[in-house]
Amino acid sequence: MDKPIAFELHGPEFIPSQYDKHIVRRLSSMDGQYLDLETYQEMLTKDDLLLYEVYEIERPEVAGELLHGVSIVHPGKVGQEYFMTKGHFHAVLDTAEVYYCLKGQGLMVLETPEGEWAVEDLSPGRVLYVPPRWAHRSVNTANQGDLIIFFIYPGHSGHDYGTIEQQGFRKLVIDGAGQPTVIDNPRWKASGVNR
Amino acid sequence: MDKPIAFELHGPEFIPSQYDKHIVRRLSSMDGQYLDLETYQEMLTKDDLLLYEVYEIERPEVAGELLHGVSIVHPGKVGQEYFMTKGHFHAVLDTAEVYYCLKGQGLMVLETPEGEWAVEDLSPGRVLYVPPRWAHRSVNTANQGDLIIFFIYPGHSGHDYGTIEQQGFRKLVIDGAGQPTVIDNPRWKASGVNR
Repeated sequence: MDKPIAFELHGPEFIPSQYDKHIVRRLSSMDGQYLDLETYQEMLTKDDLLLYEVYEIERPEVAGELLHGVSIVHPGKVGQEYFMTKGHFHAVLDTAEVYYCLKGQGLMVLETPEGEWAVEDLSPGRVLYVPPRWAHRSVNTANQGDLIIFFIYPGHSGHDYGTIEQQGFRKLVIDGAGQPTVIDNPRWKASGVNR
Repeated sequence: MDKPIAFELHGPEFIPSQYDKHIVRRLSSMDGQYLDLETYQEMLTKDDLLLYEVYEIERPEVAGELLHGVSIVHPGKVGQEYFMTKGHFHAVLDTAEVYYCLKGQGLMVLETPEGEWAVEDLSPGRVLYVPPRWAHRSVNTANQGDLIIFFIYPGHSGHDYGTIEQQGFRKLVIDGAGQPTVIDNPRWKASGVNR
């Protein structure tokens, strides 16, 4: 029988006092995701920068359980495009996610297989409910300071990173004269798989 | 197709800027739950005090969705026993819950149908994972100030209040010479239903 699990989640760092897994994503894991391929390659030659980190509490991956943890997107840009998470659909599409922003300033970029898209503000104290079927990516739009989010999703959700790796997101967020600006992704391609 | 839902959750009040349901629980809804039945009746004669409130975001009650909201337990006592929520099992026992304490000081009292129990601290910044099968009740142990918690649970969980209404919790939390003290519930009775 599982016992209740408790941990502390305090600023300014918001690293859980107890966690099971620490995932680190570097520039090299984002091949083909940033619009400015040339700058991406140039940056990668110099340093495989740390883009974001995820601290996870592990639970059985079944319905009824809740997977949860903290994601930290560091500030920075590849060309004009802000540092961001890979983004993903859930493998079980009909599963939601709750985000509670703890620190920083950013945007969540969302889209459905049916062609809808949305961009939502992330700032401290803001709760964002990602309904079933929406792929989601966090973007740190601040010049400095991490974007830190507490996330919770159903245990059976799974992750589908492949669809986004292949087709990208429909919308990108770039620094347009100092302002976060949403633009069409010229390289976006429908997967042809209408799920 | 559902759109993403966003709301603000800020101190010092932590009332969601947008919600679907506001549940108010008064003293009269706790018949038979407090140890000191005489004081309970005396208090009820004078005033049907507000014990706690819940602000809920409504979502379809199916697996894959996440029900979430904020609970606020006000400070006070019935005799020596602190104000608390009714507490419940989930109707679908194998469903978990995530609590993130936003404000105040308290305890969560938990138990399983198999006879295990636990009491966990609640203080700002503390995350508590209630695994599947654990009934749970929030207790405000502060002399003043609300106990405020952000909660998230699977959409298909449901609520079983009846079992706790009939048998109570195995453990109670009372003010023992100024300190929160966990005692056996002398009126606790096993339901005979070993689920």
